[in-house]
Amino acid sequence: MILHIKGCVKPFSTINKFIFSVGRVSYATMVKYLNQTESINVDKDLFEKYKFSVDQLMELAGQSCAIAIARTYSSLKNSTQKILICCGPGNNGGDGLVCARHLKQFGYLPEIYYPKKTNNTLYENLLHQCIENDIPLLEDNVEYIASKQLHQFGLIVDAIFGFSFKPPVRDTFIPIIRLLQNTTIPICSIDIPSGWNVEEGPPTEGGIKPEMLISLTAPKLCAKKFEGKYHYLGGRFVPKKLDEAYDLNLPEYPETDLILLLN
Amino acid sequence: MILHIKGCVKPFSTINKFIFSVGRVSYATMVKYLNQTESINVDKDLFEKYKFSVDQLMELAGQSCAIAIARTYSSLKNSTQKILICCGPGNNGGDGLVCARHLKQFGYLPEIYYPKKTNNTLYENLLHQCIENDIPLLEDNVEYIASKQLHQFGLIVDAIFGFSFKPPVRDTFIPIIRLLQNTTIPICSIDIPSGWNVEEGPPTEGGIKPEMLISLTAPKLCAKKFEGKYHYLGGRFVPKKLDEAYDLNLPEYPETDLILLLN
Repeated sequence: MILHIKGCVKPFSTINKFIFSVGRVSYATMVKYLNQTESINVDKDLFEKYKFSVDQLMELAGQSCAIAIARTYSSLKNSTQKILICCGPGNNGGDGLVCARHLKQFGYLPEIYYPKKTNNTLYENLLHQCIENDIPLLEDNVEYIASKQLHQFGLIVDAIFGFSFKPPVRDTFIPIIRLLQNTTIPICSIDIPSGWNVEEGPPTEGGIKPEMLISLTAPKLCAKKFEGKYHYLGGRFVPKKLDEAYDLNLPEYPETDLILLLN
Repeated sequence: MILHIKGCVKPFSTINKFIFSVGRVSYATMVKYLNQTESINVDKDLFEKYKFSVDQLMELAGQSCAIAIARTYSSLKNSTQKILICCGPGNNGGDGLVCARHLKQFGYLPEIYYPKKTNNTLYENLLHQCIENDIPLLEDNVEYIASKQLHQFGLIVDAIFGFSFKPPVRDTFIPIIRLLQNTTIPICSIDIPSGWNVEEGPPTEGGIKPEMLISLTAPKLCAKKFEGKYHYLGGRFVPKKLDEAYDLNLPEYPETDLILLLN
């Protein structure tokens, strides 16, 4: 399919990358938004073709999330308000554990809710590192957290599901997703707002409404439906060849910055 | 042994941490400088007690080196002058490979000299990541590099030997160490200037004189003999418990910074 725009002839797949934003030019006008298959393939290439280890990329991804959060919610530093990090069972949860540890290093007070711990060495070690960094692990159920503990938090980090999520939400996670849907505490979602369809966006009813979204590697299609205040890109590790192979059009990060505000 | 300073009674081991600098107060007045055994034990604790993986910490260490170099030698960006990264066979060389990759991401032109490649998956993958990021690998001998290629470089990164180095320098590395001793191109040493005694400093004759030193985790004793312009601390990942256990007195990194200028 061919569309004519601004006097150019471009195939539809190229046009697809543009967001027609009104007002100021933003980085979001350039970067490609990935569908689920592309997201999975980019990830596969990073590990198989470029031979990164999960440890490496999860460290960089989680670190970039912590930097973006610390810069945006700096008032939470040296405050009594804590940050609740909700971790899922997969890589998104792993990013959350790394993010928690770096937030602690930056002087914030993260606490972890991790209802379904993953039984492999990487995740066990990431959790161990958090505990050894004096980050509390909330072992209570969501109802208790909601009624007795939630008022202590100034921000909730949603690291529950990532780009490989397919509905429906499993029973274990229904209470925490419901909490995130109903709370007035600002939410920062890592890569995907949990429970959203990776391509379509929020479910027709309910759905988390994060104030902040940190897209990792490249934004996913659902990020077009993001209506919060801050959309960051993180994960400055994509080889130029990979960018070109997928036509990602990643924006240039300034200087040595590891995150980039897209909107 | 007990010394009296500023009205306090402190054991000698504590006094040992202070550098009596004249002029402005610097972070170097607080932080502990580690001997070789302490360096080895801190490293061992990070991996065994805190359960970090080598992949994780090497990524953070190499990344912090790249950030420090990019901030200090920013004129090399968008210039034709390249950065020569000399990598040894151990972890110091691994830090160098990671540093090279991040420098490439930051827009610099690193090239790698890696005369004794380490035969294990981690190092093979780190090198592969560099090559896939279009970082050239210099396969010529040092004499050829010195006569034909060296003029292209605006900076040399010395990632040859780290804190576990014990003299003498092995034959394979004598030519590159000699080149580093004789060049007028600025050198940035990672953790230890290669060929220096980790505790005593430079050999009585010759010895590399880096313009920049990036101490990782904590400075080593030889760093007290460093007379270059820039002494950075990198590796913002040390758990508070570990800092306290070794009385490291690590300075506070500002905001989300991953490096700290010590002098």
